[in-house]
Amino acid sequence: MDGAALARACAEAMWADDSASKHLGMQLISVEPGRAVLAMTVDGRMVNGHNICHGGFIFLLADSAFAYACNTYNRRTVAQHCGITFLNPARIGDRLTARAVERQRIGRSGIFDITVSRADGLPVAEFRGHSRAIEGELIPGVKAD
Amino acid sequence: MDGAALARACAEAMWADDSASKHLGMQLISVEPGRAVLAMTVDGRMVNGHNICHGGFIFLLADSAFAYACNTYNRRTVAQHCGITFLNPARIGDRLTARAVERQRIGRSGIFDITVSRADGLPVAEFRGHSRAIEGELIPGVKAD
Amino acid sequence: MDGAALARACAEAMWADDSASKHLGMQLISVEPGRAVLAMTVDGRMVNGHNICHGGFIFLLADSAFAYACNTYNRRTVAQHCGITFLNPARIGDRLTARAVERQRIGRSGIFDITVSRADGLPVAEFRGHSRAIEGELIPGVKAD
Amino acid sequence: MDGAALARACAEAMWADDSASKHLGMQLISVEPGRAVLAMTVDGRMVNGHNICHGGFIFLLADSAFAYACNTYNRRTVAQHCGITFLNPARIGDRLTARAVERQRIGRSGIFDITVSRADGLPVAEFRGHSRAIEGELIPGVKAD
Repeated sequence: MDGAALARACAEAMWADDSASKHLGMQLISVEPGRAVLAMTVDGRMVNGHNICHGGFIFLLADSAFAYACNTYNRRTVAQHCGITFLNPARIGDRLTARAVERQRIGRSGIFDITVSRADGLPVAEFRGHSRAIEGELIPGVKAD
Repeated sequence: MDGAALARACAEAMWADDSASKHLGMQLISVEPGRAVLAMTVDGRMVNGHNICHGGFIFLLADSAFAYACNTYNRRTVAQHCGITFLNPARIGDRLTARAVERQRIGRSGIFDITVSRADGLPVAEFRGHSRAIEGELIPGVKAD
Repeated sequence: MDGAALARACAEAMWADDSASKHLGMQLISVEPGRAVLAMTVDGRMVNGHNICHGGFIFLLADSAFAYACNTYNRRTVAQHCGITFLNPARIGDRLTARAVERQRIGRSGIFDITVSRADGLPVAEFRGHSRAIEGELIPGVKAD
Repeated sequence: MDGAALARACAEAMWADDSASKHLGMQLISVEPGRAVLAMTVDGRMVNGHNICHGGFIFLLADSAFAYACNTYNRRTVAQHCGITFLNPARIGDRLTARAVERQRIGRSGIFDITVSRADGLPVAEFRGHSRAIEGELIPGVKAD
């Protein structure tokens, strides 16, 4: 399978049982080898005590984009360490987009950068994720060309 | 007001409008100056594509404990940068406890360490949060003795 | 002064009294608004107990590149929080290059990404720095056009 | 060998060829299983363009304390990812002490917290290091009781 088709197939396999991301109304916009774009609209469940979107839901969106991006090679891969910096608030109704891009991949380890932005283009958060490939495939027996 | 009473009053003020934490079934177990303990049980909404709790919900619990711990001085305080390391998986039905402890507080900046553990004592994640006090109080006009 | 000239003038002002970077044999290769490239050759002083370059010297090079990149606007700026991930070892004689690129700048806060590479192109470390502008200028009274 | 004796023997083996730490005038104050204390006095080589100790040398001290603490089990262990937050400046002549404490150790992975302080007790930096055990021993064939 070519790399782009494999990336999409991996994402479909993950999405099928990803109730967490679906429950929050996330949408998988696009996926390519080492990249993924997800979107989510802030709703009333996500508001914290300062009346802005709880940082944890911004993390969730970025972390999901990270997971889809680092699992595009049909090698089951998990998050080890993630850092997030909050830049601008998000409020109810804000449409957030998380763009994940692979920065490094060496052996079983990867580094991915994810930017979460509002529809007006303002950055909401910068996230850097460190991944590690573990045993197992998402689609048994399929390899990239 | 003494520091311990002020910490509890701040937490009550935050909890009153913290629909995000409540919606996820979190419980505020205890709060002291610079400290907070919160608990949450992993449910079906929180499962990811690897059939374990999505790291984002573990982050959410730790981040809420961080928020309650850094807002115990009646000075409105927000998260700037957070890092999380995932150590052991959590599964549906696991009762998770997040314990937040202040490590440093210098001027408007603070560093808090949060450990998320399962009921069997195994650590699920280590989280370090960097906070910054902004304008405003949680309970207008009240100060610590 | 135009932005590019101001960036170079800031770097010259910093370099004049940067004995730490000079003592380690660093070279300032280039500087532009929000960007800087520095190089350093690993020598016998920098070797650790595993007979590879002590990670601290790799950090030092990245941190210097970060400092030059975030001080290109004639606003005195310091490091707040830095994260570094070590990817490949460096050995005595290796020529290391650190490339710092601004990722975000919002008010007084900035995020910069620095990649340290060997001459053969292999990445040695990825560094993300969070900066904060403080009081003062590097070249009193000069502003960008 | 008992754990405390093994920790000291590992530290001696590392120190013997740790020219980086020795060149900077570091002193190994104490070492125990999962812990190490190192000290260093800021000198003229370590000053940066803001006339304060270059953050990289503070990182170096913390990173060395981290290395000694995570190598106390006679299992060769390296730094993977480190984060450092700068809290107060250090100046020429300041005596800095770095205290490294193991926070978690699970399989081959560890998390260590290192606080760097001045002689007056003020914290200079907080450092969190993530370690990974690799192949090899520091003292061939010796095990903890």
